[in-house]
Amino acid sequence: MAFDFSLSARVEQWRDTIADFVATTVIPREQDAFTHGVNDTLRVELQQAAKAAGIWAPQASAELGGGGFRLDEAGVLLEQAGHSLLGPLALNCAAPDEGNIHMLTVIATAEQRARYLQPLVNGDVRSCFAMTEPAPGAGSDPSALQTTATKVAGGWRIDGRKHLITGAEGAAFSIVMAKDSETGKATMLLVDTDNPGMTLTGHARTIDTTMVGGHCQLTFDNVFVPDEAVLGEPGEGFRYAQVRLAPARLTHCMRWLGAAQRAHDIAVERAVGRHIFGSVLADHGMAQQLIADNEIELAAARALLRESSWALAEGDKGSESSSRTKVFVSEVTGRVVDRSVQLCGGLGTSEELVVGRIYADIRAFRIYDGSSETHRMSIAKRAARRATARADRA
Amino acid sequence: MAFDFSLSARVEQWRDTIADFVATTVIPREQDAFTHGVNDTLRVELQQAAKAAGIWAPQASAELGGGGFRLDEAGVLLEQAGHSLLGPLALNCAAPDEGNIHMLTVIATAEQRARYLQPLVNGDVRSCFAMTEPAPGAGSDPSALQTTATKVAGGWRIDGRKHLITGAEGAAFSIVMAKDSETGKATMLLVDTDNPGMTLTGHARTIDTTMVGGHCQLTFDNVFVPDEAVLGEPGEGFRYAQVRLAPARLTHCMRWLGAAQRAHDIAVERAVGRHIFGSVLADHGMAQQLIADNEIELAAARALLRESSWALAEGDKGSESSSRTKVFVSEVTGRVVDRSVQLCGGLGTSEELVVGRIYADIRAFRIYDGSSETHRMSIAKRAARRATARADRA
Amino acid sequence: MAFDFSLSARVEQWRDTIADFVATTVIPREQDAFTHGVNDTLRVELQQAAKAAGIWAPQASAELGGGGFRLDEAGVLLEQAGHSLLGPLALNCAAPDEGNIHMLTVIATAEQRARYLQPLVNGDVRSCFAMTEPAPGAGSDPSALQTTATKVAGGWRIDGRKHLITGAEGAAFSIVMAKDSETGKATMLLVDTDNPGMTLTGHARTIDTTMVGGHCQLTFDNVFVPDEAVLGEPGEGFRYAQVRLAPARLTHCMRWLGAAQRAHDIAVERAVGRHIFGSVLADHGMAQQLIADNEIELAAARALLRESSWALAEGDKGSESSSRTKVFVSEVTGRVVDRSVQLCGGLGTSEELVVGRIYADIRAFRIYDGSSETHRMSIAKRAARRATARADRA
Amino acid sequence: MAFDFSLSARVEQWRDTIADFVATTVIPREQDAFTHGVNDTLRVELQQAAKAAGIWAPQASAELGGGGFRLDEAGVLLEQAGHSLLGPLALNCAAPDEGNIHMLTVIATAEQRARYLQPLVNGDVRSCFAMTEPAPGAGSDPSALQTTATKVAGGWRIDGRKHLITGAEGAAFSIVMAKDSETGKATMLLVDTDNPGMTLTGHARTIDTTMVGGHCQLTFDNVFVPDEAVLGEPGEGFRYAQVRLAPARLTHCMRWLGAAQRAHDIAVERAVGRHIFGSVLADHGMAQQLIADNEIELAAARALLRESSWALAEGDKGSESSSRTKVFVSEVTGRVVDRSVQLCGGLGTSEELVVGRIYADIRAFRIYDGSSETHRMSIAKRAARRATARADRA
Repeated sequence: MAFDFSLSARVEQWRDTIADFVATTVIPREQDAFTHGVNDTLRVELQQAAKAAGIWAPQASAELGGGGFRLDEAGVLLEQAGHSLLGPLALNCAAPDEGNIHMLTVIATAEQRARYLQPLVNGDVRSCFAMTEPAPGAGSDPSALQTTATKVAGGWRIDGRKHLITGAEGAAFSIVMAKDSETGKATMLLVDTDNPGMTLTGHARTIDTTMVGGHCQLTFDNVFVPDEAVLGEPGEGFRYAQVRLAPARLTHCMRWLGAAQRAHDIAVERAVGRHIFGSVLADHGMAQQLIADNEIELAAARALLRESSWALAEGDKGSESSSRTKVFVSEVTGRVVDRSVQLCGGLGTSEELVVGRIYADIRAFRIYDGSSETHRMSIAKRAARRATARADRA
Repeated sequence: MAFDFSLSARVEQWRDTIADFVATTVIPREQDAFTHGVNDTLRVELQQAAKAAGIWAPQASAELGGGGFRLDEAGVLLEQAGHSLLGPLALNCAAPDEGNIHMLTVIATAEQRARYLQPLVNGDVRSCFAMTEPAPGAGSDPSALQTTATKVAGGWRIDGRKHLITGAEGAAFSIVMAKDSETGKATMLLVDTDNPGMTLTGHARTIDTTMVGGHCQLTFDNVFVPDEAVLGEPGEGFRYAQVRLAPARLTHCMRWLGAAQRAHDIAVERAVGRHIFGSVLADHGMAQQLIADNEIELAAARALLRESSWALAEGDKGSESSSRTKVFVSEVTGRVVDRSVQLCGGLGTSEELVVGRIYADIRAFRIYDGSSETHRMSIAKRAARRATARADRA
Repeated sequence: MAFDFSLSARVEQWRDTIADFVATTVIPREQDAFTHGVNDTLRVELQQAAKAAGIWAPQASAELGGGGFRLDEAGVLLEQAGHSLLGPLALNCAAPDEGNIHMLTVIATAEQRARYLQPLVNGDVRSCFAMTEPAPGAGSDPSALQTTATKVAGGWRIDGRKHLITGAEGAAFSIVMAKDSETGKATMLLVDTDNPGMTLTGHARTIDTTMVGGHCQLTFDNVFVPDEAVLGEPGEGFRYAQVRLAPARLTHCMRWLGAAQRAHDIAVERAVGRHIFGSVLADHGMAQQLIADNEIELAAARALLRESSWALAEGDKGSESSSRTKVFVSEVTGRVVDRSVQLCGGLGTSEELVVGRIYADIRAFRIYDGSSETHRMSIAKRAARRATARADRA
Repeated sequence: MAFDFSLSARVEQWRDTIADFVATTVIPREQDAFTHGVNDTLRVELQQAAKAAGIWAPQASAELGGGGFRLDEAGVLLEQAGHSLLGPLALNCAAPDEGNIHMLTVIATAEQRARYLQPLVNGDVRSCFAMTEPAPGAGSDPSALQTTATKVAGGWRIDGRKHLITGAEGAAFSIVMAKDSETGKATMLLVDTDNPGMTLTGHARTIDTTMVGGHCQLTFDNVFVPDEAVLGEPGEGFRYAQVRLAPARLTHCMRWLGAAQRAHDIAVERAVGRHIFGSVLADHGMAQQLIADNEIELAAARALLRESSWALAEGDKGSESSSRTKVFVSEVTGRVVDRSVQLCGGLGTSEELVVGRIYADIRAFRIYDGSSETHRMSIAKRAARRATARADRA
């Protein structure tokens, strides 16, 4: 048979357990987290509960202690976790650790696995991924990388500045992307947070508030790391970044899809309970349009995401498919949350209804991990290349 | 394994044959058809060629002589046929015959199968589906049905008016939806075109031009049909309409998705060959945005359509899923074609480039088989019902 | 001559002074205000500076000490002030005081003017407008009003709850909308904040942060006010609300148009200074699209707003025109700010660039003072009435 | 007083007369024109009626026999004429003659005025404007001009090809844009249709059908014209094109705004008369949304158009303002007509309801006279230049 969109029993079981866990254990902590911030105390508490519930790290490999689900199956679970902005953190499938776990699983040496990966999967530590730089450095265009790694005796010296490094405060280590000062090629290096010379020099005051550790500025001033700190091979940084980025884009989509679904659910539940202008809000045509558009776009986003995740899990390199999906899901979820705010009316922008918090937090998703514009450029170029090939054949 | 989005070898083989057939046999006839209209001579010629190519009626059951593909697999093939506005006609998977074939296959008696269905599958005759009525009759709201079927000795008398009946001119028979004058319930009846009393009283002059037989007005004045003309059971007309409508919505989506893909392909091929303001058109950022948006939305439409078709093929009643998909695909394909027109510039609205013809022809798809608004209303009501149930549980 | 879109010399002079004042005096205080909130100390400091600059309360009548500009001319000035989220506050033309000043100017008795209006125009005190109630009370549908005013000897007793009352904390008085418990008609009453029985019972934690006093919940428990506290006539509350609402919608549009223009200006200035993928960001086609869409929509919003303000100033009751303008300007400014965030990339959601703060703060504008949906309903009804009249004539 | 949006009595009087004329004289001829095409017989008949009604050529100068209205006032009248696709033709204010009349009025010599302009204003003849060329010639990028004008004894020799030349068939003369083969600069030349060597070599089969003479291909093969055929100065063609284009963009906006208003009026009139799902269609929320969006955007388009026309009439060169307005009005009117089609349901794409015809005819307006993309590029560049200047000052 050609197609199969059904869920395996194990996926369904985890999904239902996660739904229950999020509802009973995570959501009750949200308002406090929104008011006082998300700190490691809360993280550890939630993570212990998730472990106890048997839903730990669905996407991490089984031998490391995770659920061992394939990316397409994990999609169901990460979406479910994403119903709370704290859910992925609780299950240890949140950014940036989830992406780092994936990349380290593929690339790290045995020693690096023991020292960095296993504690990360365990939730014993957090990590960050230090690629983005302030202008004119590497942002949407990674080739503009300015942080340097210079070969010195027994290791490398790192110099430069990073910003918007999510989760850097409180992380045990950073995966740092730097340019080999000799070859100009990118290299990834593992830097322990207690390394003198790597300094947290500030936080961006962004409108999202639920990422542990915030969005940090890091300064690398004469930072020495030994040769064993290189992740994979020197000069292969951009290739490894792709290893991380294609699935990481999709896991972002999964989590935010859950958040958008939550916002929609809240809005519709509210709309069926409110009376306005003589009838139930949910029966008004314009409210129906908002509701239906959400239903339609959420379904389309989910279908596209599932197909992309399947392709990636099947071995497709997935860059084009994941680009399309990232643009689509980030824009759909943005619109869904916006409509949900509108449906909720006066309290729509409040944290009490959660929808307002999701609205502010989700905005950056159209920008990070490749802005919509960057992905569109890349998608269009590939389409143009195919059209040229067709024209040449004809 | 949970998911499978791969195509079977047989689907791939048919798809490639159809692609070749459309390119070499159908497309060369387009300009002539655009200029002089699509008539049965052209239809028969193309259909014989399709039979000879071994790609006849992919969606019809094998015992009747069709390809016997499930709905989800047929989707791949109908989309491919849809690359030409004449392709589905050539393969006998065009509206309204394709939907009638499906419904008759499910409902017709042995005698009706022999007399109506088999010749229809063979392409020996055409048919039409006479449901829509001029205001204040049945349009988006089928319950407003005004055409009556009155029980008389040995049969039924039909009286009323229908309009926008696609393909009525030249059809061998109509499937007529009428209201039992006694019970008020809807009944479907088979009416031969040579039945005196059923008269073709006009055509709507719509901006689409490629439907054989056009969009007709029919008048039923004292039309007698025998009891055997009833399709299925009297009073079950609305239930049967659902048998037809849910899959028919999806097959419309499949065909129009192919047409939209064609428009996009033409536009991109043109954009890679044109120089403007000092560079290739396809390299301009705004052209890239048009191209990328098309690529993204076509992929999302295809994924959602495939999932809905799978669900329907698996036995889901599919009304909600197919409603969502109909709205999404009809709106996506409309936007894709609109962007393709824009990309083609001055000739974008011309028939010579085909894109202009698709633009005019596709517009009504957001209206027929349930307008976007009607489906949205239905989708929102179901979502509201679920939210109420959740709220009641909580 | 039929049309004149030119600005008078006095408007131009005030506009330029305001531009300079905002740039040199207000904007330098923004980051501090974003971090620590906007309090009355900052307000008073900025207001004294605005008075010194000769740009005090442009929309307030001259005899009260304001600029005395007509609504259409004031539009130019309020937009200019709106370039900073703190600008309107500094010039005493911010919500809710600006709307209250307008309404009191039209309706208040001499005594009320002396006691409430003049100190308000002076900036000696702040005020609030207490209409919105928690569900199932008055929100978008004011007829659902639940707070009651009961006639008692020498005055009225007010009971009920209000929420989302902007600026209530720290206000000297509230203008309270209540339903006459006998007649069911709405009445407006002036309630001093030190009135026992009126209690501030909470704040909504919304994603906007720059309104002095926040969005408050008020409880009215057996609140006594004397007869002189009635604003205008008892039972005329809804009519007075219209006096306030039509111009207040437009002044919101003016201020937010300035904020959107600011976001756009920041984004374009940034885009001309950044290099990415080998050229200046502002030269990339997709960036050009964002920039051009902002330019186009800002111009359209300004033109429509000016026309509506002129109509209102000329004596048009303006309800339909101001409804159209409110929907259009609130949606345009939302899109403009969203595009500006996108153009700014990684820092687009930050307060440091200001754009992120505007993004979060502007969202509620599509909801308050009549949601987009409420206004659309009202606009469509009027259009339908006109069409019916045309049809009747024909 | 700063602003004045009121209409003069003379504008109102003409507007009302035009409204009456269109309703009673032009609209009755529409269906016939849609079915059989618009020819010069119909044109002459309608034009004589318009002259008799005293509403001839509102935009043409009074000394030539036109109404002598300024561009901003003419906007009211051209919009009113545009309520029928045949209205502007009837009043001799249709493209391309209206634009040619304007340009010739500004540039032509006394002899050219007598020979070409006066008969054109009279409606004795039609004309065309031959600028656009097939790829790789001049389309959106006029600098790609390939048709050449070569100086020869006593005149010029023109060689090249043009396409999409609206109204060429049946025109008495063409204004041809050609590149001086020596200097490379553009020159405009007047070419009589009976000039041997200028041949009508085809028509584009576009989806619009109501332009007299269609969209033609012209071939210039060794065409000789005398020196007096040069319009203005040789080498000044692009400058003159600007003289034509900025106001011509706006007059297109005026006419299409009228057509969009007509589509909207038809749709709403229909919606107030139809019952569906238990209530009047116009009372359904989703229909209200379509209606309200049309009302809002039509008002915004009108306000922006009026402001741009005023600026141009006041002497502003107007290129930026008219670019913004062209993009906005062409996109708004496209959306308004699309929504009107949707509101009309099954007959929405028909010519009988007129809305379908407008839908097909209006599509090209987003492409010709500068595509949306070309204008956006130009608008963004100017915005970027201003931002650079601001940044330099700061």
